[in-house]
Amino acid sequence: MTLSTERGRLMVACPDQPGIIAAVSRFLFDCGANIVHSDQHTTDPSGGRFFLRVEFDLPELVETVGELDAAFTEAIAVPRQMVHRFTVAARQKRLAVFVSKEEHCLLELLWQQRSGDLGAQIAVVVSNHPDCGPLVAPFGVPFHHITVTRETKAEAEASQLAVLAEMSVDAVVLARYMQIVSSEFIRHWEDRIINIHHSFLPAFVGAKPYAQAHERGVKIIGATAHYVTEALDAGPIIEQDVQRVDHRHTTEDLKRIGRQIERTVLARAVAWHAQDRVLVYGNKTVVFA
Amino acid sequence: MTLSTERGRLMVACPDQPGIIAAVSRFLFDCGANIVHSDQHTTDPSGGRFFLRVEFDLPELVETVGELDAAFTEAIAVPRQMVHRFTVAARQKRLAVFVSKEEHCLLELLWQQRSGDLGAQIAVVVSNHPDCGPLVAPFGVPFHHITVTRETKAEAEASQLAVLAEMSVDAVVLARYMQIVSSEFIRHWEDRIINIHHSFLPAFVGAKPYAQAHERGVKIIGATAHYVTEALDAGPIIEQDVQRVDHRHTTEDLKRIGRQIERTVLARAVAWHAQDRVLVYGNKTVVFA
Amino acid sequence: MTLSTERGRLMVACPDQPGIIAAVSRFLFDCGANIVHSDQHTTDPSGGRFFLRVEFDLPELVETVGELDAAFTEAIAVPRQMVHRFTVAARQKRLAVFVSKEEHCLLELLWQQRSGDLGAQIAVVVSNHPDCGPLVAPFGVPFHHITVTRETKAEAEASQLAVLAEMSVDAVVLARYMQIVSSEFIRHWEDRIINIHHSFLPAFVGAKPYAQAHERGVKIIGATAHYVTEALDAGPIIEQDVQRVDHRHTTEDLKRIGRQIERTVLARAVAWHAQDRVLVYGNKTVVFA
Amino acid sequence: MTLSTERGRLMVACPDQPGIIAAVSRFLFDCGANIVHSDQHTTDPSGGRFFLRVEFDLPELVETVGELDAAFTEAIAVPRQMVHRFTVAARQKRLAVFVSKEEHCLLELLWQQRSGDLGAQIAVVVSNHPDCGPLVAPFGVPFHHITVTRETKAEAEASQLAVLAEMSVDAVVLARYMQIVSSEFIRHWEDRIINIHHSFLPAFVGAKPYAQAHERGVKIIGATAHYVTEALDAGPIIEQDVQRVDHRHTTEDLKRIGRQIERTVLARAVAWHAQDRVLVYGNKTVVFA
Repeated sequence: MTLSTERGRLMVACPDQPGIIAAVSRFLFDCGANIVHSDQHTTDPSGGRFFLRVEFDLPELVETVGELDAAFTEAIAVPRQMVHRFTVAARQKRLAVFVSKEEHCLLELLWQQRSGDLGAQIAVVVSNHPDCGPLVAPFGVPFHHITVTRETKAEAEASQLAVLAEMSVDAVVLARYMQIVSSEFIRHWEDRIINIHHSFLPAFVGAKPYAQAHERGVKIIGATAHYVTEALDAGPIIEQDVQRVDHRHTTEDLKRIGRQIERTVLARAVAWHAQDRVLVYGNKTVVFA
Repeated sequence: MTLSTERGRLMVACPDQPGIIAAVSRFLFDCGANIVHSDQHTTDPSGGRFFLRVEFDLPELVETVGELDAAFTEAIAVPRQMVHRFTVAARQKRLAVFVSKEEHCLLELLWQQRSGDLGAQIAVVVSNHPDCGPLVAPFGVPFHHITVTRETKAEAEASQLAVLAEMSVDAVVLARYMQIVSSEFIRHWEDRIINIHHSFLPAFVGAKPYAQAHERGVKIIGATAHYVTEALDAGPIIEQDVQRVDHRHTTEDLKRIGRQIERTVLARAVAWHAQDRVLVYGNKTVVFA
Repeated sequence: MTLSTERGRLMVACPDQPGIIAAVSRFLFDCGANIVHSDQHTTDPSGGRFFLRVEFDLPELVETVGELDAAFTEAIAVPRQMVHRFTVAARQKRLAVFVSKEEHCLLELLWQQRSGDLGAQIAVVVSNHPDCGPLVAPFGVPFHHITVTRETKAEAEASQLAVLAEMSVDAVVLARYMQIVSSEFIRHWEDRIINIHHSFLPAFVGAKPYAQAHERGVKIIGATAHYVTEALDAGPIIEQDVQRVDHRHTTEDLKRIGRQIERTVLARAVAWHAQDRVLVYGNKTVVFA
Repeated sequence: MTLSTERGRLMVACPDQPGIIAAVSRFLFDCGANIVHSDQHTTDPSGGRFFLRVEFDLPELVETVGELDAAFTEAIAVPRQMVHRFTVAARQKRLAVFVSKEEHCLLELLWQQRSGDLGAQIAVVVSNHPDCGPLVAPFGVPFHHITVTRETKAEAEASQLAVLAEMSVDAVVLARYMQIVSSEFIRHWEDRIINIHHSFLPAFVGAKPYAQAHERGVKIIGATAHYVTEALDAGPIIEQDVQRVDHRHTTEDLKRIGRQIERTVLARAVAWHAQDRVLVYGNKTVVFA
């Protein structure tokens, strides 16, 4: 995915009402922008909430996106109580990936970054264990080992936040991080922390979901990527996928099969977030995949 | 799916150029229509072909759709070399289902019509065998048994066409009809004949695809719904689905498993066609599912 | 599936120990039986539980199965603390299908019986509403309308049990029956009542699972066929399947999509039960599919 | 997957006849082996071909497998015209992975080897380009760059064969190698060369399958792992998988999506081969997965 510097994205959320698409598309046309993709969704045509994502090409976008935003805000957004955001596709989002000891999700993200399929930059990897450091090194990504214990949790989070600030991070990915982050941390990064949970949520919330799945005797297992909120494993779901299993599979087998699902689901969710395809409302997501 | 009489659909295809969405959405807004869904696709923002499907609500649509169409043609369609079509959602399409002896695809369509999931009316069932007649009777759908032999093929097609005309049919569904229809028939119903082929096209074109699949030792089988063109099993694909199989499955097992796939795939394709979600270009389809 | 009168099945469960397969296969060989399929599973080679399902051909099986069973019991089963069962494939199991007002699962079972894919006989349909009666009539299956109210529940169950006895029923299928059956009823039919739950269990136990799924914003929905136990929606799972959904789907859409999953999952589970492919242990199943 | 040194596998193929399972399981029991898994398949109980795969535990297997084999050959295999093979699970197969410039399949195999999910050792990587060398280095696997041109093809194959011999390789994996290997090479490694083809075979044989798929407008794409035979892309299929696509996907998108399918399918096929789960007969496979 090479992205021209002309490619822009506009995300919009507002109360539904007639004429929004007409107004937005007219505005972009008058600015000289050519719409190349457009997706919209309304929760209810009468009194619901309306969501729009537009990709457009506009010469010299990088230089003029500030003016464009200002003009849009005044002409379109304010009168219609819109929340909106312009982004420049060529400015890839910068990610911090948090890991513990399990490496499969981290490796998938690193590879997909290198192959160009992720559409984002992994700016830094943060871990409470040193184990994944050697893995990360060949990719040229900084690795920060920040120990977390019950006593040092507050300090550790302060260090983490400092790293995120220093590296100009846009979003945090918990790639099997196995630690609960604090409410403060979550609030600071609202709708920008993506976690992979190794079950088909809302089944098997909490610890050891593969053991739970084995115990229950399910015939399909899954993984779920979601934004982190204060309620454990209960935030807005971005993506899920599943795989068939049967009575022959031990808990170890479920973990092995699950690793493939986790990798795929997390990479997909991160790519969508990076490309501004995910809009959160209430405890759900609109995904313009 | 109960459809309000206000709900309309507009399908558009034209050379891509800036401003189309702005113009169309402005037109609908000025007419008092509220857009409730909108999907668009371009094969290439520079010089490609542009496709649009809009669902909208407009009071008294049924009475005014003729005027609306005339106004749109003059103001929007002609200047932009558009092909377009307005439809009224409440006027369900009328289908003729052609069958031979296999009943599973026919039954699926009849049930989904009754449950309201099809979004279309089965106006008539036509068969070259009498076998399916008793099945159809309880659904209150007329059944025409029109014998087809090599000698009487032309006559039989004339009878079929007469039935289609008499029943005001909008589209023809070949639900395992097992007969090749003539070029004249196909041209008469271009892009309006849907066939189910019992393989994952383009694999296993022609006769006995399950036997071919068994012979080749594939690990997944499938079915394909496509518009019929003169080239055998080569028309624009609307929908496909697949199922895992393994070495234990005989050709008979593949047929049994395949019946479920065929039913699902055909019903989905017919519903999409009935709801004007399928746009044909070249030998492909855009499906706004 | 036409089944020769020679085809038999043997299901075995016992403590795992060396030599079981050798002993059982030798026994069958000495009796003149030819093994055509064989599946086995052990929960743990040291001290686990061993499960075996064998299909074999044996001339004059129907006449001699009683003797075969007696000989096996003495020579093989008793010394090894086996639970076992011989069945004759040509003697199809007789099912009672319980329904309420929703017809899709019932219809699927009736149709798969007729096409021969079910491998079982629907001996009777029982409903607490008269609505499905006309549907069942053309299939020539008796339909019993037994009203169930809070006050008459005990009486109603007595009537149901009488019908099951009269019709020589082997298993009960709750095909969206929407009523909770009593503990007595469950005990009477242990491991022989199959229910379809319209969610991907253990997610969304209880009432209105599609509304729950919509509320939670899941990206995949499912259905689960399981044996009924006294704990609500918590019995041994036989089969599950899923389908992708997205933010555009309303609760009504989920119900529509879910109907297809429910039909498929229930029919598969019933067919496997009918063919003695499901062995229950603890709260799980071994499915030799 | 840590494998005890006691775990063995026995693969058998022979004309079907009564008593095989009894004879084999008796033999193993008498030797003191405990069967922990057993899978069998017959193409036809009367006159077909019978396949068996048994996993068993036997103390001191590593030391005695030669004697075991000799005894089995005499007592069981010769009288029944069996082809058979004993393997020791702890002796992992040694693989040569051939690549060209595309790295995704190679990386997947290297990573699954390290995580222990592959159940095989990658003994050497061979490439006609130097590009993948730096990738392989951190895994400690030898990398041989052997240039192949039209003129030097014979020489190059001689060098390749020398490397395979020197590294005591058991099987060759063409992980997007993009070169046609000679008939001599194929014959030398019959049923031991696994190729990944980037389409759902038999659809889109030959070059540029994603471009072909895009041109045909299919709604599902796939990948196929198969043993290499002299007929191009026509050897026995081991595994296939698929993914949905739609009209919005360009050929580049199909390649991106396809890379994930290829990785998964190839890794699964290689793991099954490594664990002796794949038996070839005619142009098909029995996979005891």
